Amino acid sequence: MRVVDIIAKKRDSGLLSREEIFFLINGYTAGKIPDYQVSAWAMAVFFQGMNAEETAALTEAMLKSGAQMDLSGIAGPFVDKHSTGGVGDKTSFIIAPLAASLGIRAPMMSGRALGHTGGTLDKLDAIPGYRTNLSMEEFRRILSKDGFVMTGQTKDVAPADRLLYALRDVTGTVESVPLITASILSKKAAEGAEALALDVKYGSGAFMKEKPAAEALARSLVDTGKALGMRVIALLTDMDEPLGAMVGNFLEVEESFLCLDGTRSPLTDDLMEVSLELAARMAVLGGKAENAAHGRELCEKALSSGRPKQLFLDNIESQGGDVKQFLSMIGSYRSSHAADIRAPKECADGAYIARIDAWKTGHAGVLLGAGRNRTEDAVSPVAGVVFRKKRGDAVKAGDVVMTVYAKDEASLAAALPTLEDAPEYTALLPESREMIWKEVV
Amino acid sequence: MRVVDIIAKKRDSGLLSREEIFFLINGYTAGKIPDYQVSAWAMAVFFQGMNAEETAALTEAMLKSGAQMDLSGIAGPFVDKHSTGGVGDKTSFIIAPLAASLGIRAPMMSGRALGHTGGTLDKLDAIPGYRTNLSMEEFRRILSKDGFVMTGQTKDVAPADRLLYALRDVTGTVESVPLITASILSKKAAEGAEALALDVKYGSGAFMKEKPAAEALARSLVDTGKALGMRVIALLTDMDEPLGAMVGNFLEVEESFLCLDGTRSPLTDDLMEVSLELAARMAVLGGKAENAAHGRELCEKALSSGRPKQLFLDNIESQGGDVKQFLSMIGSYRSSHAADIRAPKECADGAYIARIDAWKTGHAGVLLGAGRNRTEDAVSPVAGVVFRKKRGDAVKAGDVVMTVYAKDEASLAAALPTLEDAPEYTALLPESREMIWKEVV
Repeated sequence: MRVVDIIAKKRDSGLLSREEIFFLINGYTAGKIPDYQVSAWAMAVFFQGMNAEETAALTEAMLKSGAQMDLSGIAGPFVDKHSTGGVGDKTSFIIAPLAASLGIRAPMMSGRALGHTGGTLDKLDAIPGYRTNLSMEEFRRILSKDGFVMTGQTKDVAPADRLLYALRDVTGTVESVPLITASILSKKAAEGAEALALDVKYGSGAFMKEKPAAEALARSLVDTGKALGMRVIALLTDMDEPLGAMVGNFLEVEESFLCLDGTRSPLTDDLMEVSLELAARMAVLGGKAENAAHGRELCEKALSSGRPKQLFLDNIESQGGDVKQFLSMIGSYRSSHAADIRAPKECADGAYIARIDAWKTGHAGVLLGAGRNRTEDAVSPVAGVVFRKKRGDAVKAGDVVMTVYAKDEASLAAALPTLEDAPEYTALLPESREMIWKEVV
Repeated sequence: MRVVDIIAKKRDSGLLSREEIFFLINGYTAGKIPDYQVSAWAMAVFFQGMNAEETAALTEAMLKSGAQMDLSGIAGPFVDKHSTGGVGDKTSFIIAPLAASLGIRAPMMSGRALGHTGGTLDKLDAIPGYRTNLSMEEFRRILSKDGFVMTGQTKDVAPADRLLYALRDVTGTVESVPLITASILSKKAAEGAEALALDVKYGSGAFMKEKPAAEALARSLVDTGKALGMRVIALLTDMDEPLGAMVGNFLEVEESFLCLDGTRSPLTDDLMEVSLELAARMAVLGGKAENAAHGRELCEKALSSGRPKQLFLDNIESQGGDVKQFLSMIGSYRSSHAADIRAPKECADGAYIARIDAWKTGHAGVLLGAGRNRTEDAVSPVAGVVFRKKRGDAVKAGDVVMTVYAKDEASLAAALPTLEDAPEYTALLPESREMIWKEVV
């Protein structure tokens, strides 16, 4: 078997066999197949795609390139949630304790911020003492005790994915449905999830801007997950505007806690809608609910009970965080390099916010210091944006639309023009957003 | 400027600027841009192509990555011929002295055999003492004295092409019209050619099997050559069957010499037709003939004069070859590991040869030891095939169709099945071949 023949076969729209895919991935992981052949192959896959069997084989090869979490001896069901990434997307912090309160085990391995999207690990790092580099034994213990656990991907999980992702990032081969599918599912299968609720986002702040592209990815994820023996449901959700009222690292943990604590406002309706619909699917996937409506009912009831909030705090303690200090930071842990953005004079006669662009907000978040463009950059826990108004809210010239926090004055100055440009204003009340477009099963 | 953005731009069918192309090629040549980005870019070019401006910029960037031959002080016109490669394609040895006899200077830098196609340098190496590693000064002196010179590409000529070609070879990105165009023309421009007659072949033994693909390559070569200020004509010629009666290293030099010496037979009609038509274009390009018909007339006249044959022998001497020994080898320098292939018993009632497959012949040539699959393999000077019958010849069962020479008995045994399969037989006299399909100017 020659790598160049495998590349040419895919280039000429041929179907790769399971043996060819394993040969390629195993050889690459072992350092026997060079980057330059794999990047050419990835570009050929970008253009020619992969069918369901090829994608499943690729996912399996990547999964088997490393270790799998051993969850034996822990009672399931093991159900995870995965989002394709967005701006202000903090649903994990709400969903994990919520699902755990229903008797589901959520073994969550997460990533860091990159580009305009935030990262769960960076947000958790903003909690004093919280550890995201758990050992296998700690992972098992905390999952068993709290019903959920949140950690980073260890080096021995899907090493082929780590290599391939780094290569795709610098060779223009990120935006490929089968490659994205294999990357996501190989990690989820490695952490021990038996079932998966997927949040596939579309809109300006999403990876896939257009609905059809997002739907194609959802279809690929669901079909491939099933081919690997997982139960999978995907929701296609709106990421054209930031979720909730807060964007940033500590800010997003804070907002999640406030939502679990019962502090809900119209500004967090979008966030709760997506969180509850996803948690409802986890309830169905875990056999705790008969259907999504029943799952949603159970989730609403659980929220009212205060149990998810307690599990959230228990988990902070379990993972080394300082709960008392965390609670003392709520509402006050902010950068002092701050500024308000106000509605412009065009709104003198009164106007509505038509839309807040998620991509611009996320891009500005990087400039503020809340995110990063390169994996080696550090992020600030206290940088971010707090929205005072969102889509559909009435504003007059001079009203504060958002408060902006930066890691320093230079970052603040750099980000403000983009953030001033993020809200769009209109004279007419805009239609409300439909947060869940479709379900793919 | 970031390489990943250049890759993504081409991937998304964008047009690359001259600056972007030079940035990529210069960075690659300098070792600052890694193979894995260039191979992904090459695959994107494979799928999205390049327009005339992009191809010209790429060619120029590759040309300028290295040195150019300094032909100042030598009287021109400098006109070269280039073929896209085939089986039994020995036209250079006939055309170069023929054009030189008309007062044209042909500065020829050639390559080695790879895959099923032969290589000019390997053939020349079969002449005892003949040197193909000339210095710049030797190149100038011999070109000036004999009117033509034949050497290998020196290390300082188009280093970007050498790097890129080696990378394309192992990443499935060879078959791209703009990449082939830039590879050919950057080297031809570097050797100092002002004008170029191109032999773009189609058929089973050609790089481009189909006429439309060959025509697209010819069009790209002509347009790009002109954009770089060269005068260029391309002929689209038939490479579905081997050219002439001999395939092999010494065998092809011998056949060329015999043709120049006036020993022409129906078996070499195809070879002479292609050679004379190409040489006629060189006469036109070099200002020695008013049109192709006039050029052809001048070539026929020159051949009769015996002058090209003398220039051929002069060049052997100039490049260190032993003319006396060469002449003594004609007709006898053959491997002793030989076998005849005869018409099968299906031809008992008499038949015609319908076709001899060029690809099978070339592929068998590698097995015999006349060619190579990997650049590091050695080739045998005495291996090859001599056809006794060709398309349109009448045969009876048991007639010798070809004599086969191999470097050893194992190679002979390995090649025979393919060679037995190369001729096709028919009961009806086949149509004669049209050697020149089209001219692209």
